[in-house]
Amino acid sequence: MAAARGGDPRAVARLISLVERGGEELAELAGLLAADTGRAEVIGLTGAPGVGKSTTTNELVRALRAAGRRVGVLAVDPSSPFTGGAILGDRVRMQDHATDPGVFIRSMSSRGHLGGLAAATPMAVRVLEAAGCEVVLVETVGVGQAEVEVASLADTTIVLLAPGMGDAIQAVKAGILEVADVFVINKADRDGADATYRDIQGAIALGERGPGEWRPPVLRAVASRAEGIDDILAALAKHRAWLIEHDVLVGRRRERAEVEITQVALARLRARVAAVTGDAALPALAADVADGALDPYSAAAKLLAALNQTADPDRP
Amino acid sequence: MAAARGGDPRAVARLISLVERGGEELAELAGLLAADTGRAEVIGLTGAPGVGKSTTTNELVRALRAAGRRVGVLAVDPSSPFTGGAILGDRVRMQDHATDPGVFIRSMSSRGHLGGLAAATPMAVRVLEAAGCEVVLVETVGVGQAEVEVASLADTTIVLLAPGMGDAIQAVKAGILEVADVFVINKADRDGADATYRDIQGAIALGERGPGEWRPPVLRAVASRAEGIDDILAALAKHRAWLIEHDVLVGRRRERAEVEITQVALARLRARVAAVTGDAALPALAADVADGALDPYSAAAKLLAALNQTADPDRP
Repeated sequence: MAAARGGDPRAVARLISLVERGGEELAELAGLLAADTGRAEVIGLTGAPGVGKSTTTNELVRALRAAGRRVGVLAVDPSSPFTGGAILGDRVRMQDHATDPGVFIRSMSSRGHLGGLAAATPMAVRVLEAAGCEVVLVETVGVGQAEVEVASLADTTIVLLAPGMGDAIQAVKAGILEVADVFVINKADRDGADATYRDIQGAIALGERGPGEWRPPVLRAVASRAEGIDDILAALAKHRAWLIEHDVLVGRRRERAEVEITQVALARLRARVAAVTGDAALPALAADVADGALDPYSAAAKLLAALNQTADPDRP
Repeated sequence: MAAARGGDPRAVARLISLVERGGEELAELAGLLAADTGRAEVIGLTGAPGVGKSTTTNELVRALRAAGRRVGVLAVDPSSPFTGGAILGDRVRMQDHATDPGVFIRSMSSRGHLGGLAAATPMAVRVLEAAGCEVVLVETVGVGQAEVEVASLADTTIVLLAPGMGDAIQAVKAGILEVADVFVINKADRDGADATYRDIQGAIALGERGPGEWRPPVLRAVASRAEGIDDILAALAKHRAWLIEHDVLVGRRRERAEVEITQVALARLRARVAAVTGDAALPALAADVADGALDPYSAAAKLLAALNQTADPDRP
């Protein structure tokens, strides 16, 4: 813990692995990290495969480092049952920053964590905050509901699009419009960038927005040539100023804490169900349901009755 | 209910909407449907966007109808917060069967269902079984973990691939290899079909398989020209015979019932947490966590202590 606070990359990596596994030790770690909560600006970055998330993250890290800021990157893959590193080939590009002691980069999946990434990610962010990161980029791989949830754990969420990928419809489907604070059309030098720009502006215009509410800007970038990166940083700074000026940041962070607490509580309840389902109770109930002798709701009620009769470690 | 059993499409649609919403009435419906459990062959079909799932489903329905079998189709979109119909433009093609009283087609999302699709899908399948369907096709849109879980609720799961989409890696990432009983390379007339065939055969060869275990066949099809559909039906029949011969079908259905019961039980626990979080308890805890005065694990323990003190409807 002391080594991680000192910024030792191996100590930081070990703590994040601990968070990823999500064992009982986490409760203790959580207590040690509580005081570090909220130190960093947390930026979410999400978008479909192929829009250039890694390249954009890479350039954002470069620009933030040039401004002298310590940066952490969490690349999160909710759908992967593996640790991210082995599959995410393009993560190799992040090696640009491998020797920079002011950058921590880590892939993370939810394979072991009972509370899922909604509980694991804020804890991993806290580890990076304890290690001295001033900005933490949370990059999610994919466009599903899970990715949107993870991205929305940030203070500011960037949604990355690319021309001609039907992203506008995908974004609507996945509920991305609701969580995006900044849209970036990457590969903006390609055909179709204008159409994507119009699509997404049209979708934004459809959303109802009260006076004083943030209207997400739509930026253009070509991350592979480092074009448009300064505009993104400017939009991030503007959104942060708005969050503070309108007293929204505190509320967002409290909402995030509500989600996190609820996820941890649910994980504990789930663990109790799992403990009961280790018994003979569930297989017998399942056999009746499969045979049509019992319905799943009645079976669940019986299971919960058994659960309530077991020892309850959380009862005061 | 009587009308749905009589095969009235509107009554069936209403019951599936009820399942999708997932309200308290479901417990009663579940009791009424229990006896219909297990009547149909349940076929899962999953694959990335663009591989031709709808076209393939459409042709499978046509072939099954030609063989005189009553068919139900559930098109499931785990990531969509909307009902499927509005977004899924290609569902229009299913209109081929719109006037056939032997076919029920329905899009479904998990927007309201507390237990998620893992609990909603088997109940919707039961509705279709009660309406007299002999085969139910469950088609999932997407390639994430949620889609895999839904597809694995079937007796037999088809994974659809297309040439040149990097599907093999996607399949490995999403854990599809573990749940696939039949692989189909659609659009097999395109360049790259042989490479995809080799990739997926290579991935299958890597998996450990005991003697007597099912080895998934890899088929080729061009669904848009109705080519290869008979081969798929033959593979489905062969897999079904294997399931029965090796006494695997009963076990699979019991495992499914275990998942379903657990999901319903978790949904009830989640509802209890939600009932508590309506109180002032959670916001106060969240404020402390956001300020770093408390860690989320201690907060969750306090929340669960409050939960245990509330009235418990499942306690006998």
